[in-house]
Amino acid sequence: QWMMLDWKPRRPDMLYDPFGLGRMVQDGLVFRQNFSIRSYEIGADRTASIETLMNHLQDSALNHVKNAGLLSDGFGTTPEMAKRNLIWVVAKMQVLVDKYPMWGDAVQLDTWVCTSGKNGMRRDWVVSDYKTGEILTRASSVWVMMNKHTRRLSKIPDEVREEIMPYFMTCHPPPVAEDSRKLPKLDDNTADYVCRGLSPRWSDLDVNQHVNNVKYIGWILESAPRSILESHELFSITLEYRRECGKDSVLDSLTAVSDNGAVDLLDSGNIECKHMLRLEDGSEVLRARTEWRPKYANNFENVDQKITLEVQCNYEI
Amino acid sequence: QWMMLDWKPRRPDMLYDPFGLGRMVQDGLVFRQNFSIRSYEIGADRTASIETLMNHLQDSALNHVKNAGLLSDGFGTTPEMAKRNLIWVVAKMQVLVDKYPMWGDAVQLDTWVCTSGKNGMRRDWVVSDYKTGEILTRASSVWVMMNKHTRRLSKIPDEVREEIMPYFMTCHPPPVAEDSRKLPKLDDNTADYVCRGLSPRWSDLDVNQHVNNVKYIGWILESAPRSILESHELFSITLEYRRECGKDSVLDSLTAVSDNGAVDLLDSGNIECKHMLRLEDGSEVLRARTEWRPKYANNFENVDQKITLEVQCNYEI
Repeated sequence: QWMMLDWKPRRPDMLYDPFGLGRMVQDGLVFRQNFSIRSYEIGADRTASIETLMNHLQDSALNHVKNAGLLSDGFGTTPEMAKRNLIWVVAKMQVLVDKYPMWGDAVQLDTWVCTSGKNGMRRDWVVSDYKTGEILTRASSVWVMMNKHTRRLSKIPDEVREEIMPYFMTCHPPPVAEDSRKLPKLDDNTADYVCRGLSPRWSDLDVNQHVNNVKYIGWILESAPRSILESHELFSITLEYRRECGKDSVLDSLTAVSDNGAVDLLDSGNIECKHMLRLEDGSEVLRARTEWRPKYANNFENVDQKITLEVQCNYEI
Repeated sequence: QWMMLDWKPRRPDMLYDPFGLGRMVQDGLVFRQNFSIRSYEIGADRTASIETLMNHLQDSALNHVKNAGLLSDGFGTTPEMAKRNLIWVVAKMQVLVDKYPMWGDAVQLDTWVCTSGKNGMRRDWVVSDYKTGEILTRASSVWVMMNKHTRRLSKIPDEVREEIMPYFMTCHPPPVAEDSRKLPKLDDNTADYVCRGLSPRWSDLDVNQHVNNVKYIGWILESAPRSILESHELFSITLEYRRECGKDSVLDSLTAVSDNGAVDLLDSGNIECKHMLRLEDGSEVLRARTEWRPKYANNFENVDQKITLEVQCNYEI
C-alpha cells in the first residue's frame, strides 16, 4: 500500500534553505532541521519559551512538505489538495518537554508523518540537543482535512492519498504516549481563573488572517496564575483544537487548577491545569491540559528559593 | 585614539553558532549574520513583520558582542561593565524598510558600532537580500550606559572604553539620515486613537523581567487604526525610548494620524502617525513616529484594490 520513496537530491538552486539547515534523512521519510535558539526566542527564564518550541515544530513541518516538493500555494497544502480547496487542520497536539534549550543552543528536529485512523494524519517530532544528542522534547499531533470554503471535514481523496503516501512512515507508536484522558468543558463556575476580552493583535494573524495555532498558547497562559508561571515550568501540554479564530474574534481564557494542586505541591510539587478558550458566544475554540514542575527541582543550590516560591504559589492557589 | 583591532579567528569549539551563520568581516569591525525567514516570522501579508526585522537587528547586535568575546553575564554587557553594574540601554532607534523579505528568503545583516557624542554608542545595520545583494532595510540606533541599580545614566568609564574601542568603527554618516524632527508629547486630546490597559504577557518579558524593546512596537500598533495596517505597510519608524516597563506595568497606547493624512492620501498615499506609550500615572515610556505607504503602490495589477483601500482608510480617518 505504501510506496517506497524514490528520493532524488534536489539541485542546489532549488533548495529553499541557503544555509543547509534542513534535509531528508532515513530514505527520505524523516525530515531533519536544525535551529539555533535566537536571543529573542528566550523568555524570562533565559530558556526557549514553549511558544518558540511550538514555532519550531510548525516550521519543520512546513519545511518537510516544502522539501518533499509537495508544497502548493497554501501553508502545507499539496497541489492535489489545492485543486480541491482542501487544507490540513490540526485536531490534537501533545508536547512533552524534558528540557528547555537556552540562547545559543542548537537543536535538531526530526519529524515524520504516518496515517492516523482512516482519514487522519499523525505528525511526530523528536527534538534533541544538536551537540549531545540528548532528547529535549517529544511531540505528536493529529491532523484532518478540511474544505477551506465549506469549513467541513473531508475524507482524504485518492489523488491526495497517492500524492502523500510515499512520504508516510509505517506506523510506530508515537514518541509521546497518547493522553486519552478526557478534557473537561470549563465554565465560569468550574474555572478558577477567567481572563476575558482577549483579541488578536495584528501580529498574531497568519497568512489566512486566522490566528496561528501557536498563539493560542499565549492566551491559555494569560489565565494561568502568574505565580505558577514564575515558580514552575511547563513540561506537558495537550491541546484539542475545536474551532478557528479570526481577526475579529474576542475570547475568554479559562483555567482550572487541579484539585490535588495543593497536595501535589507538598509531594512532588507538580501542578496540573485544565484550560479552555471560548468565543464570546460561548462556542469552544480549544481545550487543553498543562502540567508543571517546580523550576528548581533539579537544582540543589536553589532549594531555598524553591521552597519560598512554592509557599507563595500554594498561598495564591 | 582608536586602536586597530587585532582580530584572531576563534577556535571552532568556541564558536557560539554551530551553523556558521555569524562572523566578523572587514578587519573585525563589522559583524555579519545571516537569517533565513522562518514561517512563523511572517504575518498576514506573507512578509516578515516589523517585529521580526527588529528581532533580527537585536539578535545580530548581541551576537556581535558575543562574537567579539566581550559578552559577560548579562545581555550585551562586557566584563568591565558587569563589574560596575553598567548596562547599555537604547535611547533612540530609526528603521527604514525598503522591502520586506518573505518566508524562505535569506537576509544578510551587517552591523557595526561607533561613538555617538561623548558618552554614547551608535549602532548601525544594513540588511540585504542574501541572494541578490539588494538592500532591504537600514537602521541606526543610539545607546547610553546606565547603572542597573540606580537606573541613572553613566559616563563610559575608561576601562570600559578601552575594552570596547577596538571594536568601534571610525564614524561615517549613519545608513539612515538622522530624523531630528521633534516628536510631540501626545495626550488624550491630541491623540486620535487611545488604547488603554495594555499589559505585558508573560512571554513579552526578557531575562531581566523587563519588556523587550521590540514588544513596544506591537503596543504602538495596537492603537494604530486597523484600516491603516491593512491597506498600508510601514516603511519608516523612529523610536525614542524614555522609560522601561516591568512585568506589572499597565500602559496606554496613543496614536495621532498626521493632519496631512487626507491630503497625502490623495497625493502619494503615504500616511504619517505619531505615537506615545505611557504608564497609567502619565509618565512616558516611548515616543514614536511611523510612516506608511500603500501596500500595492508598486503593483500595477492591484491598482483597483489600492484605490478602494485608500478610500476606506480615508473614510475611517
